Amino acid sequence: MELTLAQLAEITAGEAEGDAGAGIRCVRPFEDAAFGDITLVVEPKLRAQIRESSATAFIVPDARGLEGLNLLVHPRPKLAFARLIKLFAETKAAAPGISSDFTAGANIRLGNSLTIHPRVTVGRECSIGDRCTLHSGVVLGDRVSIGNETEIHANVTIYSDVGIGARVIIHSGTVIGADGFGFVTDEEGRQFKILQTGRVEIEDDVEIGANCCIDRATFGVTRIARGAKLDNLIQVGHNSVIGEDTIVAALTGFSGGTTVGRRAVIAGGVGTNPHVRIGDEVLVMGQAGVTKDVPQGLRVAGTPARDERVWKRAITLFYRLPELFDRIHRLEQPARGGRKPGKKTKRLRDPETKRPGV
Amino acid sequence: MELTLAQLAEITAGEAEGDAGAGIRCVRPFEDAAFGDITLVVEPKLRAQIRESSATAFIVPDARGLEGLNLLVHPRPKLAFARLIKLFAETKAAAPGISSDFTAGANIRLGNSLTIHPRVTVGRECSIGDRCTLHSGVVLGDRVSIGNETEIHANVTIYSDVGIGARVIIHSGTVIGADGFGFVTDEEGRQFKILQTGRVEIEDDVEIGANCCIDRATFGVTRIARGAKLDNLIQVGHNSVIGEDTIVAALTGFSGGTTVGRRAVIAGGVGTNPHVRIGDEVLVMGQAGVTKDVPQGLRVAGTPARDERVWKRAITLFYRLPELFDRIHRLEQPARGGRKPGKKTKRLRDPETKRPGV
Amino acid sequence: MELTLAQLAEITAGEAEGDAGAGIRCVRPFEDAAFGDITLVVEPKLRAQIRESSATAFIVPDARGLEGLNLLVHPRPKLAFARLIKLFAETKAAAPGISSDFTAGANIRLGNSLTIHPRVTVGRECSIGDRCTLHSGVVLGDRVSIGNETEIHANVTIYSDVGIGARVIIHSGTVIGADGFGFVTDEEGRQFKILQTGRVEIEDDVEIGANCCIDRATFGVTRIARGAKLDNLIQVGHNSVIGEDTIVAALTGFSGGTTVGRRAVIAGGVGTNPHVRIGDEVLVMGQAGVTKDVPQGLRVAGTPARDERVWKRAITLFYRLPELFDRIHRLEQPARGGRKPGKKTKRLRDPETKRPGV
Repeated sequence: MELTLAQLAEITAGEAEGDAGAGIRCVRPFEDAAFGDITLVVEPKLRAQIRESSATAFIVPDARGLEGLNLLVHPRPKLAFARLIKLFAETKAAAPGISSDFTAGANIRLGNSLTIHPRVTVGRECSIGDRCTLHSGVVLGDRVSIGNETEIHANVTIYSDVGIGARVIIHSGTVIGADGFGFVTDEEGRQFKILQTGRVEIEDDVEIGANCCIDRATFGVTRIARGAKLDNLIQVGHNSVIGEDTIVAALTGFSGGTTVGRRAVIAGGVGTNPHVRIGDEVLVMGQAGVTKDVPQGLRVAGTPARDERVWKRAITLFYRLPELFDRIHRLEQPARGGRKPGKKTKRLRDPETKRPGV
Repeated sequence: MELTLAQLAEITAGEAEGDAGAGIRCVRPFEDAAFGDITLVVEPKLRAQIRESSATAFIVPDARGLEGLNLLVHPRPKLAFARLIKLFAETKAAAPGISSDFTAGANIRLGNSLTIHPRVTVGRECSIGDRCTLHSGVVLGDRVSIGNETEIHANVTIYSDVGIGARVIIHSGTVIGADGFGFVTDEEGRQFKILQTGRVEIEDDVEIGANCCIDRATFGVTRIARGAKLDNLIQVGHNSVIGEDTIVAALTGFSGGTTVGRRAVIAGGVGTNPHVRIGDEVLVMGQAGVTKDVPQGLRVAGTPARDERVWKRAITLFYRLPELFDRIHRLEQPARGGRKPGKKTKRLRDPETKRPGV
Repeated sequence: MELTLAQLAEITAGEAEGDAGAGIRCVRPFEDAAFGDITLVVEPKLRAQIRESSATAFIVPDARGLEGLNLLVHPRPKLAFARLIKLFAETKAAAPGISSDFTAGANIRLGNSLTIHPRVTVGRECSIGDRCTLHSGVVLGDRVSIGNETEIHANVTIYSDVGIGARVIIHSGTVIGADGFGFVTDEEGRQFKILQTGRVEIEDDVEIGANCCIDRATFGVTRIARGAKLDNLIQVGHNSVIGEDTIVAALTGFSGGTTVGRRAVIAGGVGTNPHVRIGDEVLVMGQAGVTKDVPQGLRVAGTPARDERVWKRAITLFYRLPELFDRIHRLEQPARGGRKPGKKTKRLRDPETKRPGV
């Protein structure tokens, strides 16, 4: 497929400068781009090297100082770039079809133009929309519904009574609808299971990475709202809600009943206490431990999580604690400044193991 | 199914007050409960709203001030509630049977009343007890034994030489018996694998969440003892032992040779050093890093983990470090209190990146 | 199989002392070793008990004080031990063969002496080397190539366009080649997916644990270099590179574009910022958060990660913060030492929740 720079500008709602008829056949990152390619130039470092590139055209936020080059000028150049990657990739789609090695329970409803790979197992009373793709090893329980154009990758497990929207992508190894983690101690001190009778709803346009776990609700519903994007190895506890267009990075765990608002960004390795509420557009930094509610728009870091600026100031001073102890020690001397620095240094280097207690 | 309040009281060993003949058809949480339902009322907030509910009956710890309502009075109301959820749910069980699409190796022993879904693969010399359920995509290696009434969810993998007890539940994607992580550097600095020749034992009444990893022992055994409950995405290293009725939350990792006692509670995101011993009834707070043995009954937090009160005091003061630096700075002035506060504040706000070194 | 001590010494390039003709039938850890066994004695504690053991022979670093015992003296006794475990285990290998329940796409190339268990699914244009083992539930996409003697355990998923080397071991539940996590906000604030068009390369002699996720590159390649060893539940983001013979422990996550050098050791629960570079032979301690580049050979700990000694000194003083606040409080008194200790202690024990704000 070859398109002109003018066509690409039209498709992305940007503006072409230079040779609008230049033919483009591929989208590539700056360091690999060559003749026939369009590439992205946002960072000043790349912009300085732009005339050394042999790419045919460049997506840029503005044309200043780039006279004579073929440009696609766009206010959101990364978005234009992402759209063109998709455009040039879409020609590869395989022909749809349902494998003969498909096992399904009673009373299922199948949409049109499905792609079902070999060894897919579907329970009773399931409903699958149009143009969905189910890869090998996918297992659906009973009463699972799936919207149109959803893709479920190999070896995903979806338990019974789960709803999945349209245009959802679920990556391999992810488990949706396993029991929430709830036990109560019985008279003999043993753990008695609280049956988890609720469900999970994954709304439209959600993407869930590989080897995630989205637990079913105790009662009611665990919800991943429209457009939320989850990375790999994420735990979403029972009755949690992840808001619209919220982004969650890998290895983060939400305890039962956590609520995250819209357009929040949760970095990797984060944990939350049960039932905390994280507001819209909050940013939680990596490895933070969220122990109480976070108001809308705040940026938090640390365990327990605090305003990012408060944490940054504290952690900077944390690494200056040896200096602090030394300054206090000096202040404590009867004649200030009269101590020998050598002795001080030795004291501060005492390894942790030599301290009694704690 | 409809049961009277008197019957429910008898089943749970509680006491009925009010209309003992009232018919109950469902168990629901307080906010959803309506006519025909029994619900749980423990928190004072709900107790204050109890007369606004249209539920038929209420499980409560005592009857004070609740005259005229239908009550199930129970010393452990949450346990009674959990038991009734199970009671009303049990009518749904599917008819057992073994799928024709079942692949098994030589010399296996199968119990009675099994439910084996399509596409289950079982190796040689395996033994499966009575009334077990194996879901689609389950793979057992050779010489795996499974006790009665155990349920193994879809796409679980159990390697060879693993023993699993009775009434165990293993959720989807979990891997039991993969090799422990052991290597030794060879003469050329390359990693040489230490073959892992031990086994895994999962005892009776254990529940293991989704996408967990329980590694086999190098020699000997990795053990999850009777009644222990593991959440999702948990790593149990080779030769570890998790004690009876111990609870472990998601995304926690136990290094090789970790021992956890009975009735301990390990919160989420915790890590341990190899070979540490965590005593009975210890509580480890979320994201703690346990670097040395923890005596019985202690509550610990932080990395390295310390007595929870010690950590809480330290972390509270951590966030007051800017104040502390300021107070020291004042003390260091020749004439105390003579500094301008504006200057001080600016100094404390120096971002981390402007500090030399460290 | 029985071998003499002399044969074992020859195989491991060590030296036999004592009865070189003694027959050895098994390798066992010290506490289990009995007649007919060889075992490892490195720690002084075990060395002190060596004459109480009924083992036939002992692998030791030197023969001092061990006269009269059968010894395999070796400069790297753990390596010799690991080699003998492998030697005695290798007699168990099953006969190779390809299950009739094997599903493969068009134009695949299969090597010799393969072991393919039932229910393996392989896409189009795949290539599998000689003497490989694929366990049940393995799913390969299109254009996957696998080198000789590689073993892929049950329920592993490998997406399309992934290269895997020779003698690689991949444990169950691991997902290789799922999409990197990349989105850009569109005009309406929604997340627009950046298609991930790159690939993954797993080089020779790599071992990857269970339930790991190795994402494909946005463009280009995500690489696990020769001899690297990954534990369970590890996230490797798009375009990351893990260097040769590097060791990574469980529950660690590498953000997109992280580069780790050769022979590094990354402990468990570590996280990294995008695009950080970790040098050769670096040691990253457990739960560290690596926010910037780490030069070759450094040992780092903490979040943000710093030189291990700097972090250890700071964390030791962190737990002494109550003492520090008290010492400052004393210094601030007009007449030093005039305060009552009882009052001080009470102030320091104020729980976090009573403090306003922060």
